[in-house]
Amino acid sequence: MEANTYAGAGVDVAKAERFVDRLKKKASRDLHAKLWHGAGGYASVVPLGADQAVALTTDGVGTKLLVAVEFDRVETIGIDLVAMCANDLICVGARPTAFLDYFATPKLDDKQADAIIAGIIEGCDRAGLPLVGGETAELPGLYAESHFDLAGFAVGTVTKSQLITGDKIKPGDVVVGVASSGIHSNGLSLARKLVPQGHKQRADLLIPTNIYVKPAVELLDDPAVEVHGIAHITGGGWRNLFRLSDDAGFEIRNPLPLPPIFDILKREVSADELYKTFNMGMGLALILGAGGERAVEIFKKHGFAAAEIGRVTEDSGSMTIDASAHFGADKKVKVSA
Amino acid sequence: MEANTYAGAGVDVAKAERFVDRLKKKASRDLHAKLWHGAGGYASVVPLGADQAVALTTDGVGTKLLVAVEFDRVETIGIDLVAMCANDLICVGARPTAFLDYFATPKLDDKQADAIIAGIIEGCDRAGLPLVGGETAELPGLYAESHFDLAGFAVGTVTKSQLITGDKIKPGDVVVGVASSGIHSNGLSLARKLVPQGHKQRADLLIPTNIYVKPAVELLDDPAVEVHGIAHITGGGWRNLFRLSDDAGFEIRNPLPLPPIFDILKREVSADELYKTFNMGMGLALILGAGGERAVEIFKKHGFAAAEIGRVTEDSGSMTIDASAHFGADKKVKVSA
Repeated sequence: MEANTYAGAGVDVAKAERFVDRLKKKASRDLHAKLWHGAGGYASVVPLGADQAVALTTDGVGTKLLVAVEFDRVETIGIDLVAMCANDLICVGARPTAFLDYFATPKLDDKQADAIIAGIIEGCDRAGLPLVGGETAELPGLYAESHFDLAGFAVGTVTKSQLITGDKIKPGDVVVGVASSGIHSNGLSLARKLVPQGHKQRADLLIPTNIYVKPAVELLDDPAVEVHGIAHITGGGWRNLFRLSDDAGFEIRNPLPLPPIFDILKREVSADELYKTFNMGMGLALILGAGGERAVEIFKKHGFAAAEIGRVTEDSGSMTIDASAHFGADKKVKVSA
Repeated sequence: MEANTYAGAGVDVAKAERFVDRLKKKASRDLHAKLWHGAGGYASVVPLGADQAVALTTDGVGTKLLVAVEFDRVETIGIDLVAMCANDLICVGARPTAFLDYFATPKLDDKQADAIIAGIIEGCDRAGLPLVGGETAELPGLYAESHFDLAGFAVGTVTKSQLITGDKIKPGDVVVGVASSGIHSNGLSLARKLVPQGHKQRADLLIPTNIYVKPAVELLDDPAVEVHGIAHITGGGWRNLFRLSDDAGFEIRNPLPLPPIFDILKREVSADELYKTFNMGMGLALILGAGGERAVEIFKKHGFAAAEIGRVTEDSGSMTIDASAHFGADKKVKVSA
């Protein structure tokens, strides 16, 4: 029997990574010297002057779309769209500037379109990102009836001193985890199999992704906090922490509580696979040189549970998670870069 | 019998325009005061400082995708993607800065993906836009096999003095037309009906969209030319000229020659419908206070046919085109805003 894995659900992450590597080689040429190096490649940081750059991100919401269509509840999928882009911007230390959307549909349905856009605008409000433009494409023949696609583009600004590169991350740094609302917008191709149509928690798959921009900006501006890295936990799950630094390892002693959807997933999927596919209750990880308690306070003030969950180690490329609270006594999970 | 119109092909432009109006109202609130007003809404111009702004555009390639899939020739559709975004940037006077792509596919096929990206990179080279990032989304279940979607996002920079607002357009200004390569990436839903599969000119639908960025930047920097407006001729055909100014009318005496694909389209569609749906041989229109001959020279040097084709009149919202060369003696076409 095939184990429940992300690859088994039709998404070949390694193949996609190889493609992106080829793409980067082709596109880069003399480009890399011109870009500023932002943490983990979460955003492209393009200098406009000696001390100013724009941070640029693009993303979609993956097959979460299909769940929204299935329930005919498309009013929050726009929040996910903004979240996926905006939470990437803050990982390089950028401040939010503007958002644009691409909305493709086989046939424009006023009610559906208005609901989708209302969600995008709600997401933009939560992120403090003005929606300044977009493209609405009517594409008969490309999408099945009632299907559609969304892509988002977020722009931020960042100065040299604001830029987070991950270079300051060092052993002993505190890891603060910030709670996710559910599975957010990654791993849906697998999660949709494991929580099938008709399941009483199927609708939990639709809970909108948390948008961390406002507390993150407050964090970045707080003189009592030394932010060395921010990781948005997306595709690849907790492996996202390794994007921040080639040298860091992580020891996680007390991960955050799991939202209810994970109680189902963990019955079907091995702990190792879960941590490398899903956010496992943590939508954002902060790596701090100082100010862990203050960081927790700031995120709580904005309504997000947060806690110091572990620390940076010297064990490069290796993460140990004490997952006893979720998987029973003495359960240790190893995640590798 | 239903006449051949864009609406009849399943694309309701008026409905889409109403949707975009609602969207703008919802999204705008106190935003408009903060944005700089760029000509025709071709790009959103977001100020970053007193004299610097970023121009932002997003677009897709419409159902031209389906023709590329049909021929299994996807290697130039990325040129169209870049063109649709980049040609909008120059309409507000912006200089090219960066490009990002969104590529969604049901299942990543290395050969198809590499070909698509090669096209995007070729387009970026033609536009002088570094490809700095993107998103590759594997979405099993959303697209039919071999289908995919693309969205693009282009960023430029513009200063107050570089910004084209259309405010300087006045009666007597010269209109220079720059040749299109074919139907570009608009009106495909109708054109695919009129040039059906198996038609010997079906492949002409795939000819990549011209990218006018490099000559346009040269034009904008030429002290002998006064650029009052630039219109990228996209969905809505020649009605795009009215986007530049509420007050202007246009008298077109000698439109450019038509690429071969239009010989088929004009047998099936009324001249009025053609000019308000397709580019009719003109991919870009320049409105100039001075320097018409120089403008023609610059575009020719870059390999694009161009000519002075008419002038701005006082007859607000009205355009008269002498289309005799294409539709027989004394054929006049009227296009309204």
